[in-house]
Amino acid sequence: MQAPKPFALTPGEPAGIGPDLCLLLSREVQPHPLVAIASRQMLAERAALLGLDIQLLETGPGQWPQAPAPAGALYVWDTPLGAPVQAGQLDPANAGYVLQTLTRAGQGCLDGTFAGMITAPVHKGVINEGGVAFSGHTEFLAELTHTPQVVMMLATRGLRVALVTTHLPLREVADAITPERLERVARILHADLRDKFGLAEPRILVCGLNPHAGEGGHLGHEEIDVIEPTLERLRAEGMQLVGPLPADTLFTPKHLEHCDAVLAMYHDQGLPVLKYKGFGAAVNVTLGLPIIRTSVDHGTALDLAGTARIDGGSLQVALETAYQMAAAGSQ
Amino acid sequence: MQAPKPFALTPGEPAGIGPDLCLLLSREVQPHPLVAIASRQMLAERAALLGLDIQLLETGPGQWPQAPAPAGALYVWDTPLGAPVQAGQLDPANAGYVLQTLTRAGQGCLDGTFAGMITAPVHKGVINEGGVAFSGHTEFLAELTHTPQVVMMLATRGLRVALVTTHLPLREVADAITPERLERVARILHADLRDKFGLAEPRILVCGLNPHAGEGGHLGHEEIDVIEPTLERLRAEGMQLVGPLPADTLFTPKHLEHCDAVLAMYHDQGLPVLKYKGFGAAVNVTLGLPIIRTSVDHGTALDLAGTARIDGGSLQVALETAYQMAAAGSQ
Repeated sequence: MQAPKPFALTPGEPAGIGPDLCLLLSREVQPHPLVAIASRQMLAERAALLGLDIQLLETGPGQWPQAPAPAGALYVWDTPLGAPVQAGQLDPANAGYVLQTLTRAGQGCLDGTFAGMITAPVHKGVINEGGVAFSGHTEFLAELTHTPQVVMMLATRGLRVALVTTHLPLREVADAITPERLERVARILHADLRDKFGLAEPRILVCGLNPHAGEGGHLGHEEIDVIEPTLERLRAEGMQLVGPLPADTLFTPKHLEHCDAVLAMYHDQGLPVLKYKGFGAAVNVTLGLPIIRTSVDHGTALDLAGTARIDGGSLQVALETAYQMAAAGSQ
Repeated sequence: MQAPKPFALTPGEPAGIGPDLCLLLSREVQPHPLVAIASRQMLAERAALLGLDIQLLETGPGQWPQAPAPAGALYVWDTPLGAPVQAGQLDPANAGYVLQTLTRAGQGCLDGTFAGMITAPVHKGVINEGGVAFSGHTEFLAELTHTPQVVMMLATRGLRVALVTTHLPLREVADAITPERLERVARILHADLRDKFGLAEPRILVCGLNPHAGEGGHLGHEEIDVIEPTLERLRAEGMQLVGPLPADTLFTPKHLEHCDAVLAMYHDQGLPVLKYKGFGAAVNVTLGLPIIRTSVDHGTALDLAGTARIDGGSLQVALETAYQMAAAGSQ
């Protein structure tokens, strides 16, 4: 029998709380082998700062772990820093280091070394200051894996919300809801729920764009002109797509009980409920990639790095979700 | 000592569940006198259909109730129908009847007969078919009371959300967020929280318009150009306005614990969380009127009229809220 593949864990921005989160979770044993891709020196210093006694076990190409690390230990694929790290202090000299950890994780997923990757937060601004154009994990991994279109989905226990548009000024949203984009996003969401979440016939609730889903054309025409015909076409292929439904009444038990995911048209339509429901325990999943990638849903929280006053709930759900996706995908 | 003023209750569309809700709540005694403004005949027929034994007590000008009706009884200001009612069957012949009940309630609030009014749902479509231009309770009462600007606020136990824009196609929202409108709405919200909810120094959280509240101008400029300067100006007068904050992280305990209301820029930014949290127990409050008016947050549910398979939670909260507002306003 083959040894189980390890999962890659990137602590991200070394001055933020990512390293802290990775060290804190190592106090307990994981169900699968996990490889942190980071500077071993930096992790050792952060552990000392936090007063944590975590054993940092060396690993890397040719010597991957065959089993989960014991409680109180973390496997580390040592990756050299550009400059020493002080908790809470951003340094553009480490931009290359951060990207190197992501590249190692992503390539390792692509070449079959890792079963999936889980990412702690990076800081976009300091990477760009470091001289590398970088607009986010998602875009970086899309490029690394030659993926033309990805879909952002946030999930918490009991609710998944995917977005047709993401980080777009509100005034540009209506024009961005085209039949082509809606169809591409719906297909990726449907395929990944089936292939990566093991849902044979996923059922998706689709929001309208306008209040009351346009109220029959009285409050906007995009439902009639774009959303309904596109959903109709995809339903004819057998996809279970319910809607367009008014966003303010969709997120109620009657509708949510029988759905696998909600497809919202834009960021602030779908994510407030998700983050309200999943406070501290939400996870960001990038759909459409040829690899499994989940992420925490929070930022680097520089002011909390080294303090231990942090909540590992989101990273815990990000790990659980990656494990579930890998299990569903291997069936 | 003067007798306590009664509250007016309008069952709204007679073919919908409004009459049913009013009858069901009469099984228990209310803390204040309550006057249903409706056809006594219609209520008697609906009670028979529901198998409810509710005594319908006559009331009206010159003979207002001095105390709450006992359990199992409801005071009714008889208002003649245009045509007999069949539960579930809309009839444009009753459009005038519905508006007459609203006019009686609104005028009674204005002339000091009633302490406030609580409305069950009407059906806009059938009123318009009846030959009367009607775009909703709120607009009707604004006109009746000569109020140039009202603000829609939804509330449930523990959360209040007011809206800068309401029933507008999404593509028109960004241009509608002007300094003038934002200022007017914020002033009305602040004044009514103080005067009608008894909050001496209300604290209001304000959403940005764009995702991540524009992320410093990277995701839209309305926060910088419109929202921040307007809030700054109002803060200089002593108003406690926090924001603009990203809508997807605003609705979390850290922020909500210390706030009296959230001001959202548009319908689907603010209401999904409110209705998720307050499912079945949310209430619509019209701010800015010279009278107290609360409403259920659901529709006429024609298919459920006469079936007793309905949930009175929203009407219960609408009553509670009107009672609280009247108590706060009389202090």
